[in-house]
Amino acid sequence: MLQATASVIIALMMGIIGVGFVLWQTRRVLSYDQGSAAMRKIAAAIQEGASAFLTREYRVIAVFVAIVATVISLFLQWQTALCFVVGAIASAGAGYLGMYVAVRANVRTAAAANRGLHEGLRVAFGSGAIMGMAVVSFSLIGMTVLYLIFNGNPAQLTYITGFGFGASSIALFARVGGGIYTKAADVGADLVGKVEKGIPEDDPRNPAVIADNVGDNVGDVAGMGADLFESYSGSIIAAATLGAALDADSAAAFIGLPFLVASVGIISSLFGIYMVIGEEQDVTLASTYEDMSFTGRIIHFFRKQVAKINEHATLEDLLTALRRSVWGASAVVLGLTLIAVLASGVSINYWLVILVGLIAGNAIAYATEYFTSYTEKPTQAIANSTQTGAATTIIQGLAVGMMSTVFPVLIVAVAILLSIWLGFKADGTIAAGLYAVAVAGVGMLSTLGVTLATDAYGPVADNAGGIAEMSHLPAEVRHRTDALDSLGNTTAATGKGFAIGSAVLTALALLAAYITAAKIDNLNILSPTMLPGILIGAMMPYLFSALTMMAVGKAAHEIVLEVRRQFNVIPGLMEGTGEPDYKTCIAISTDSALREMILPGSLAVVVPLVVGFILGKEALAGLLVGTMSSGFLLAVMMANAGGAWDNAKKWIETGEYGGKGSDAHKAAVVGDTVGDPFKDTSGPSLNILIKLMTIVSLVFATSFGSGWLSF
Amino acid sequence: MLQATASVIIALMMGIIGVGFVLWQTRRVLSYDQGSAAMRKIAAAIQEGASAFLTREYRVIAVFVAIVATVISLFLQWQTALCFVVGAIASAGAGYLGMYVAVRANVRTAAAANRGLHEGLRVAFGSGAIMGMAVVSFSLIGMTVLYLIFNGNPAQLTYITGFGFGASSIALFARVGGGIYTKAADVGADLVGKVEKGIPEDDPRNPAVIADNVGDNVGDVAGMGADLFESYSGSIIAAATLGAALDADSAAAFIGLPFLVASVGIISSLFGIYMVIGEEQDVTLASTYEDMSFTGRIIHFFRKQVAKINEHATLEDLLTALRRSVWGASAVVLGLTLIAVLASGVSINYWLVILVGLIAGNAIAYATEYFTSYTEKPTQAIANSTQTGAATTIIQGLAVGMMSTVFPVLIVAVAILLSIWLGFKADGTIAAGLYAVAVAGVGMLSTLGVTLATDAYGPVADNAGGIAEMSHLPAEVRHRTDALDSLGNTTAATGKGFAIGSAVLTALALLAAYITAAKIDNLNILSPTMLPGILIGAMMPYLFSALTMMAVGKAAHEIVLEVRRQFNVIPGLMEGTGEPDYKTCIAISTDSALREMILPGSLAVVVPLVVGFILGKEALAGLLVGTMSSGFLLAVMMANAGGAWDNAKKWIETGEYGGKGSDAHKAAVVGDTVGDPFKDTSGPSLNILIKLMTIVSLVFATSFGSGWLSF
Repeated sequence: MLQATASVIIALMMGIIGVGFVLWQTRRVLSYDQGSAAMRKIAAAIQEGASAFLTREYRVIAVFVAIVATVISLFLQWQTALCFVVGAIASAGAGYLGMYVAVRANVRTAAAANRGLHEGLRVAFGSGAIMGMAVVSFSLIGMTVLYLIFNGNPAQLTYITGFGFGASSIALFARVGGGIYTKAADVGADLVGKVEKGIPEDDPRNPAVIADNVGDNVGDVAGMGADLFESYSGSIIAAATLGAALDADSAAAFIGLPFLVASVGIISSLFGIYMVIGEEQDVTLASTYEDMSFTGRIIHFFRKQVAKINEHATLEDLLTALRRSVWGASAVVLGLTLIAVLASGVSINYWLVILVGLIAGNAIAYATEYFTSYTEKPTQAIANSTQTGAATTIIQGLAVGMMSTVFPVLIVAVAILLSIWLGFKADGTIAAGLYAVAVAGVGMLSTLGVTLATDAYGPVADNAGGIAEMSHLPAEVRHRTDALDSLGNTTAATGKGFAIGSAVLTALALLAAYITAAKIDNLNILSPTMLPGILIGAMMPYLFSALTMMAVGKAAHEIVLEVRRQFNVIPGLMEGTGEPDYKTCIAISTDSALREMILPGSLAVVVPLVVGFILGKEALAGLLVGTMSSGFLLAVMMANAGGAWDNAKKWIETGEYGGKGSDAHKAAVVGDTVGDPFKDTSGPSLNILIKLMTIVSLVFATSFGSGWLSF
Repeated sequence: MLQATASVIIALMMGIIGVGFVLWQTRRVLSYDQGSAAMRKIAAAIQEGASAFLTREYRVIAVFVAIVATVISLFLQWQTALCFVVGAIASAGAGYLGMYVAVRANVRTAAAANRGLHEGLRVAFGSGAIMGMAVVSFSLIGMTVLYLIFNGNPAQLTYITGFGFGASSIALFARVGGGIYTKAADVGADLVGKVEKGIPEDDPRNPAVIADNVGDNVGDVAGMGADLFESYSGSIIAAATLGAALDADSAAAFIGLPFLVASVGIISSLFGIYMVIGEEQDVTLASTYEDMSFTGRIIHFFRKQVAKINEHATLEDLLTALRRSVWGASAVVLGLTLIAVLASGVSINYWLVILVGLIAGNAIAYATEYFTSYTEKPTQAIANSTQTGAATTIIQGLAVGMMSTVFPVLIVAVAILLSIWLGFKADGTIAAGLYAVAVAGVGMLSTLGVTLATDAYGPVADNAGGIAEMSHLPAEVRHRTDALDSLGNTTAATGKGFAIGSAVLTALALLAAYITAAKIDNLNILSPTMLPGILIGAMMPYLFSALTMMAVGKAAHEIVLEVRRQFNVIPGLMEGTGEPDYKTCIAISTDSALREMILPGSLAVVVPLVVGFILGKEALAGLLVGTMSSGFLLAVMMANAGGAWDNAKKWIETGEYGGKGSDAHKAAVVGDTVGDPFKDTSGPSLNILIKLMTIVSLVFATSFGSGWLSF
């Protein structure tokens, strides 16, 4: 197993390099100018609210982690419990750091936007890069250190599944709690502010405005980060576990490969990040190209890759800059993994599998963009349907959301088929094929450091816009932050497609690992308990979404009542002379989010255990398949319908169909509001549901029998 | 196989008795008074529109049937093709007859309501009973005659799967085409009439009003009838096919049992129907009870069972009358099937399985009622959410719809588990267990004659109300037809739950038959093509719903433009002096429904064939499992969300939250309009998608190989 250990040590070193970047970049972002006193005051309120929420959320999660760790120690092994706790801490740490920086980068972005568009992008994207690199580095360091601690122990990989479970638990609560928080505040603020009082978005008179800004961070930064932390860790764990079960001679190479791919991914992500935030270099040449040394030419090549963004950059230019960085990172991954695959001695087919994973990830992102961008037909059809009112807007939006599931499903299906086929051709077994699926997942997620940066940067830009608005910065600053915000909206939509696509591949790999671990030899689809399992599994995403949507409704209702109360009670609030009480709204969002996340969160852990013990391990496999397929569809539908409604509204706001204030716009606002919990609460939470249910099953795999009914 | 033949002959005889009832009842309903000349004129317009649509629809379907029959003859056997054509004709015949009567019973119901509530119910329910009994009798006669024709041929049951395929094809187009027609007309009429012009529903000035009334019949009578014709036939075919593959010694008994259960169901349904439409008897006794002969006591008992409905009957009273008839029929089924099971010599467990099926059917109906009735919390929560506008109304409604999937899924899961377990305990194999699932499906559907009557009666009552309104009948008549209509709305919701529940059991049994027929020995869920199959399968209901919802949107848009045009062009239309041109709206609805049904309809047939040939028979099994689970969930969600929005609006119209015309009501109307295609087009069409895809696979089962990829 020397080869595996070597790969793990390389991964650990790369993780440490990643942490180095995180620390350096954090210092750099925090060193930026914070702007005027008014800006700092608003930013401080957001920082305080975000930190208060995260502290309280982590306190609730700590109780959950303690209970589950005790259960694991009692029923399984203390080592798994330890890994579980480490996984939870690593994920929580990455989330905390990412958000700590995000709520400080927002005001700095606003201030930097004062100086120019690229300056603003550099700060905001730098903050996103901290989140992205923290996620991949903390995950890699956590897993590799645990691997080395338990090295030599035959159950070492079993223990490390606990790390994935810990990460999943954090992800669940961060996504669900954060998702409820952000949309309760958003919907509540809008319903009273925009609809009843007619004041604009981000107006400082609105008592829920700070809660809304806090929500962007706790939902879209901490929540998204924890979600992908889990996918990233889960895909590596699944690949290593499946690899260990393959041909004993090459097991070390199979276990090592995912760690090597991840290592390569860190380097590549750093390159991609540099392409966006690197300082523009003077590329006028000291000497002619022909005269340069080889090293000089390479340095010159890299310098040329830094994005050049000037004041007149359009949304398309900015998008291109971000895309180039992701593609650049992907290209580097492909080159370096080819070397890694050749060096490991595994079949070249596994390199093709990594290619499949990368292409699938980008194809899903592209399909998502097509269905949610207002320059394309689907979203324009929704905008068109606003002319006949809110009802047709909703019908069309739901139809577009449903239609948008076709490509992601076909892409994932083809990726699975090709991966299994390539693995099968390489090593002659279906098990090798399933290992290849896991490797495809690792490949898809290898550039996570930079893809997550493009995602986590969005809320920072959004907040920066809010701060610019509230502190009355000049129109051109607001114009720049708007450009950055639009860019963030687009990357957020593609990021969601990427998150769910990777969740499905990860979950499938984890499912294969579960079936191996539970020693289920023949999992016939017509075995008695299988179909009931599948049906119950398919129902879980519906139940989960119903609970989270109702939670947003309830919490938003409480915010509405509080905001109305403040407008009634505080003298001069509407006129701008009274001081709104932001803290109460923050407290309400916090309380209700934490209260409402408990039931759906517990269900995700408890249902697989109940089904596994009562109906047996085969029914549990059915349950996971049902949840995976139904959850994938529902998540894509909700995320894309939500994104499309949002952009249909934005398109109308550019002046189509009567523009802002028209009846068409009112109908579009209804669609957008329905889409809010779709795309930011329920939809994304389903990723975690899928993965968490699978990893719970994997961790407890050896404990399940054949159930209570005797066949 | 003598015993099987005997059972089939009994079923044939019962089918003939059923046809006798249908003919007698048709004469009886048609003999009722047709009311005033004004009423006849409106009714004639509806009859003409309905007949025009059905004729043209059947012409399109005839082309489809001819193509498919040719394909079957070429690739399979001419016998299967013959059965396919007979199945299509039998289903189309039942649908045509049911609708022929329904569009004549509506005006007679309005006239009868002039004389009293029970009189109205008797005519409307009598019409529904014709549809119900025609479906079960035509289906039984068709299958039994084909069985007898091919008797002795070892492939006789294989041929008869063609009958189910034929029935499915009609069902698909009837449900999809009818569903698009009815909602396009409804939404189109409302958007201009109610919203733009402010004229009430069913106002004769609205040019789309007749199309709307036609739509109720083509969608809810012919569509629902064809849907359940298919479930009914499919469940019997699946049970007989699975029974034939069991222990050779008892195969005859196993094949015969579903036919016996169906036979018993006809008697029981007739009893249930009698309980509603029987003439009230003078139950003052000629002699005291003690003095009566045994026969006299039995006659007395039955006479007492006839519902007594007086003028002051509440909705609850009417519901009780219908429920008693279904429960009465169920009780008779249980008693007679006990005898049938004992006489067949199969294990008593199969009687328990029939009990499981009946209880499951009723439990699903009850759960549906809970989630969609405005006397219960879920619908009231939607009504409450109308206070904060259309967006929260939609969010809450979707959440309720999602939540409402929990019980139906658990009920079906438990029913499947119990059935398999009982079958396994009786005959020691999982195959016996799957046969038991099919028998549970037959049991659930055994009382279809009467359950379908409670369903198909609704549109007749709805039309009667429209005719009463348009021909200005006295308020008390309208009051009575409203009472009958409300009753119809409730039974329609429960009928949809029943239709989807039975579709899942039928599809599962057909899937088991497919797997047997395709000779798939080991259907491992981790076999390479299985998961891609499941994912694509799970996507199909989304694609199908997207297409049907967009079709409604497009067609409704065309209606809106035409209605607006007529209001602009026809002088005096708004004042009531001009004559609207109903026919153009009917023609638009017809054209667009027929045009838009082709793509989703063809997909349902083509996709299983493509997947089966390219990815192989295992992937196809996965596809079916995916479609079944995902389609079940989506169908229940859509049907119940739609029903709940409808009733939330009705509750507000009783005066809650400001009543009609309030802002809350406007939000509720948005919910109701979104719910229209949910509950009457896309949701119900999914039943057929599930069953049709499965039966196509079953018919072509022997043609599929292991696909193009080599593993």
